[in-house]
Amino acid sequence: MNAPGELQQRLSLSREPFPQSRKVHVPGASPAVQVAMREIALSNGETVTLYDTSGPYTDPAVALDVRQGLPPLRAAWLDARADTVAYDGRPPAAQDDGGRHGDAADARLDELRRQAAALQRRPRRAAAGASVTQMHYARRGIVTPEMEYVALRENGRREWMREYLGDAAREARLRGNPLGACIPETITPEFVRDEVARGRAVIPANVNHPEIEPMIIGRNFRVKVNANIGNSPVTSSIEEEVEKLVWAIRWGADTVMDLSTGRHIHTTRDWIVRNSPVPVGTVPIYQALEKVGGVAEDLSWPLLRDTLIEQAEQGVDYFTLHAGLRLPFVPLTAGRRTGIVSRGGSILAKWCVAHHQENFLYTHFEEICEIMKAYDVAFSLGDGLRPGSAADANDEAQFAELRTLGELTQVTWRHEVQTMIEGPGHVPMHLVRANMDEQLRHCHEAPFYTLGPLTVDIAPGYDHIASAIGAAMIGWMGTAMLCYVTPKEHLGLPDRDDVRQGIVAYRIAAHAADIAKGHPGARAHDDAMSKARFEFRWRDQFALGLDPQTAEAFHDETLPKDSSKEAHFCSMCGPRFCSMKITRELREYAQAQGLDESEALKRGLADKSAEFKAAGGEFYVPVEGLRTAPSGGDQG
Amino acid sequence: MNAPGELQQRLSLSREPFPQSRKVHVPGASPAVQVAMREIALSNGETVTLYDTSGPYTDPAVALDVRQGLPPLRAAWLDARADTVAYDGRPPAAQDDGGRHGDAADARLDELRRQAAALQRRPRRAAAGASVTQMHYARRGIVTPEMEYVALRENGRREWMREYLGDAAREARLRGNPLGACIPETITPEFVRDEVARGRAVIPANVNHPEIEPMIIGRNFRVKVNANIGNSPVTSSIEEEVEKLVWAIRWGADTVMDLSTGRHIHTTRDWIVRNSPVPVGTVPIYQALEKVGGVAEDLSWPLLRDTLIEQAEQGVDYFTLHAGLRLPFVPLTAGRRTGIVSRGGSILAKWCVAHHQENFLYTHFEEICEIMKAYDVAFSLGDGLRPGSAADANDEAQFAELRTLGELTQVTWRHEVQTMIEGPGHVPMHLVRANMDEQLRHCHEAPFYTLGPLTVDIAPGYDHIASAIGAAMIGWMGTAMLCYVTPKEHLGLPDRDDVRQGIVAYRIAAHAADIAKGHPGARAHDDAMSKARFEFRWRDQFALGLDPQTAEAFHDETLPKDSSKEAHFCSMCGPRFCSMKITRELREYAQAQGLDESEALKRGLADKSAEFKAAGGEFYVPVEGLRTAPSGGDQG
Repeated sequence: MNAPGELQQRLSLSREPFPQSRKVHVPGASPAVQVAMREIALSNGETVTLYDTSGPYTDPAVALDVRQGLPPLRAAWLDARADTVAYDGRPPAAQDDGGRHGDAADARLDELRRQAAALQRRPRRAAAGASVTQMHYARRGIVTPEMEYVALRENGRREWMREYLGDAAREARLRGNPLGACIPETITPEFVRDEVARGRAVIPANVNHPEIEPMIIGRNFRVKVNANIGNSPVTSSIEEEVEKLVWAIRWGADTVMDLSTGRHIHTTRDWIVRNSPVPVGTVPIYQALEKVGGVAEDLSWPLLRDTLIEQAEQGVDYFTLHAGLRLPFVPLTAGRRTGIVSRGGSILAKWCVAHHQENFLYTHFEEICEIMKAYDVAFSLGDGLRPGSAADANDEAQFAELRTLGELTQVTWRHEVQTMIEGPGHVPMHLVRANMDEQLRHCHEAPFYTLGPLTVDIAPGYDHIASAIGAAMIGWMGTAMLCYVTPKEHLGLPDRDDVRQGIVAYRIAAHAADIAKGHPGARAHDDAMSKARFEFRWRDQFALGLDPQTAEAFHDETLPKDSSKEAHFCSMCGPRFCSMKITRELREYAQAQGLDESEALKRGLADKSAEFKAAGGEFYVPVEGLRTAPSGGDQG
Repeated sequence: MNAPGELQQRLSLSREPFPQSRKVHVPGASPAVQVAMREIALSNGETVTLYDTSGPYTDPAVALDVRQGLPPLRAAWLDARADTVAYDGRPPAAQDDGGRHGDAADARLDELRRQAAALQRRPRRAAAGASVTQMHYARRGIVTPEMEYVALRENGRREWMREYLGDAAREARLRGNPLGACIPETITPEFVRDEVARGRAVIPANVNHPEIEPMIIGRNFRVKVNANIGNSPVTSSIEEEVEKLVWAIRWGADTVMDLSTGRHIHTTRDWIVRNSPVPVGTVPIYQALEKVGGVAEDLSWPLLRDTLIEQAEQGVDYFTLHAGLRLPFVPLTAGRRTGIVSRGGSILAKWCVAHHQENFLYTHFEEICEIMKAYDVAFSLGDGLRPGSAADANDEAQFAELRTLGELTQVTWRHEVQTMIEGPGHVPMHLVRANMDEQLRHCHEAPFYTLGPLTVDIAPGYDHIASAIGAAMIGWMGTAMLCYVTPKEHLGLPDRDDVRQGIVAYRIAAHAADIAKGHPGARAHDDAMSKARFEFRWRDQFALGLDPQTAEAFHDETLPKDSSKEAHFCSMCGPRFCSMKITRELREYAQAQGLDESEALKRGLADKSAEFKAAGGEFYVPVEGLRTAPSGGDQG
């Protein structure tokens, strides 16, 4: 628990725009569509526009009050569709905030609840006979504003990128290897519609979460990153809970999962969803378990069903449900090095074994689809049997569940419910590809959403790195969203710095995947950075970096003076050894010989090159041509 | 500059053994061979033995004095070969410590030099007509003690690993994919000899560096990590310089490169080499440039030749020489986004252009071989034209130089000089493989030694992560040694914590590569960790981690009490949600049903599984078998 003053300080810090940056809105064809992006003004006059996950928080023009929630961007779109109805909603239950019999009387908690409840609207759901999922619209050929929004958002502003794509030879050399992805040069709303219709992409967008800036998850789009957040052991205020969300999206989280457990979880979720411009996911079984006092055997379908509706009404955009963890698969884990490591998975396995019954998520799966469909909550079919160590990777328990998730995917699609598939976990590099291949084969290209995977087990304290390696590779191979891992994985709860470290590591992995796949424009960002580097535009390098603040702080540790931001060298090599400086001198030298600037070095040295070619005809002469040393073994 | 008290503190800190660990020595067939390893006593009675780069520094039984240097482990081996002669050596020159005309009179520097000179022995070189390289011996069928040492070191103590390799089905599933490597189950001294003879591996071991614990660099061995160190702007003491080395090898550096520039570089090198149990590499052109006051045009072959001998006499084990950067290749860099980014490369390019002459390292290459051969200094043929941005990756400049390095490799091998090849740099994931393939094709499997590569350009402050991704991949594909990158790359000089971050990131990458290649025993380390994790042996997890100190500190942030080191849960999920705890309960439950312990769950649930199979015959039943929900779209 922190002092209120410090919290205010932190919250205001996280609203600060990034350096040299401002929020711009790119208008769509529909007047209601205004896509938020981050525009960076570089010191050389260029303007670079980047994908922006931070929402209105980095826009100083927007007055925000966490007690009011964000403006409901999608409300007009939802109204225009006129296929949902507002209704009174499920009445609050005593145990919604945890505890089998609800909380004891607690004036402070009552006040927190009162504040949270004040944020809520009346819930909506599909009108009788209507279907309101993005997949439903897509299959009927309807391009929704959500689809248009994500199309523009994925494209970004292409004008600035052209500067970097002028050299045809270079482009040919650097063309990505999409490994089966089919990413068009320009993402059209129609392309988005088609991808959603065939289930290859998901737009998580609960009708009760009008605050989101829509985003899309699919292998033919920018690779996304999820960050997990959770409630504090002692919740003190809306600000503190919302700040975790704001911090995560500031560094690049495309979605957040609220993995709160214990007390206050309903109340916390109210605050997070109303203030979140990104989709929010949950694992509903966590709350259900709280409601039965932590006794897995006491879970039941009616209780879970009630919890799903409770959370759908709040506006959760996707649910992790371990419906593929079936009773007969549990014995397959007996020989494992680390058994079952998914929390949800182990809870359900315990229930199955205690009752000697099939997983009730599996037996009630069609009913679950009906609930998801009424609110457009997307499935994130959980991998409860994912490996918890390299030793257990790709075993029969894992793959039996994966094949079941594929079967369930077809059920969800029959209901036109959007679906993604969760993946591991701990997988050595040479087994990563098989995960992607099996997922594509059995799950019909439904978006894959993996946790890492971690490529080694021996790096506690550094698992964000151990897993970023696997995440980058599986992202390249086709995974649509990467769930981040922080340095505290396996050890403890992440603090603010851990969250930032984890997200930046995963933004690196996702961007590396985008570049390898050849996502149009992904490399332009790298090129803008490299150009700034070569031209010693230090401040532009910071602004273009994934974490401008850290980059500048690191630079300042050795060269703190403002003037060194203009220096044509850096502290690593100093002025004498700066290779980039020498290269520039080389070019200037050639120019001084009276040659035109841009072609200077090329033409200046072409003479030498021609001379050389005339002599040998090859770029390298055979080694026999080398001068032989006169003496041997006796120097000094 | 730090206070002496703090320095002593730091130096003593870095001599502390790792937790639960002691130094053991595995005897070879030759009585003189005693291979140092780190043995960890786990709390369950198991003993795990790990490869140990930290040298005698982590052995409290060894009394060390940086003013005496390390004991000369190889001295007896060198004497026994009786093919080197001691000689007076090159007389010190005024400019050895930098400055065109040498330093002004400086009493403090004189004292530092006196201390450094006191460390030195008379240099040795090959006796007239003799060849003293490990490659020379290897080709003649001689297994040297150095070869025997590395064979035992690579194997480690295999006894402890057997525990983890009992399950044949799991082993088959996890067998690595060596991608062309041929790693035998047990590394024999004869295998080492054969790999060195064919140039596929290098044992850097200057006859003037008897202090090293021999190590090997080659694709059929454990992937190695190099860390760069450099002198302080103001050198204050031997301790301070040596501490950088000790710190780097503590975290897992297999070799260090001394990239010092400026003043004191000769003196600093004396200190480092005499106190280094790992091979030391340098870039001799850096010192040569200091000797000509930083004016690249004033470099000359006689000056460089003198510098090579100076450093060879000091005991440097490998030299980075950019002999493949040829004059005709320089114009190929004119259209690049970031020109020439190698320091050595840019210095030599400037010289070539200024003189309109071919690189003197290339024209005098055979003479260089003669020098290297006399001391068994290995080549690290530098990639002066490596890309400095994704945009420049795999271009003609880079590959023209690589092909030349392949030609030069054949020259070095004719002289029986050991050789490795340096590689990039900045390479997107989808272009990494081509680098390895081209290197293997043109350089005849000489060990590849890469800097990263960085897979994205936009991560200043996090380039250890951006590059660990590429390093892990290229390590899997066949790279033998990975040069680390720290978080300060592109921004400033790394401090102690940056060095640790960089090395640990690279140990992760190297280990991920070993596991993917199927290096025998690599995975046993992961399995020991996973078993400790599943059994809640917290202290064992810390001890088995790459950085025990950080892992324990992270754990203690949320559960600081000593008793929580025994807790059967952790702070991430708490006791209620601990999946591993639930899995154990599941197994205990089965056991309580009267079933035998080890097979408890498997057998206990096998009944259910059999029952299930009898009903459906498949692990998953088709979805049509699911119960259909009675109602639709109208919950709540």
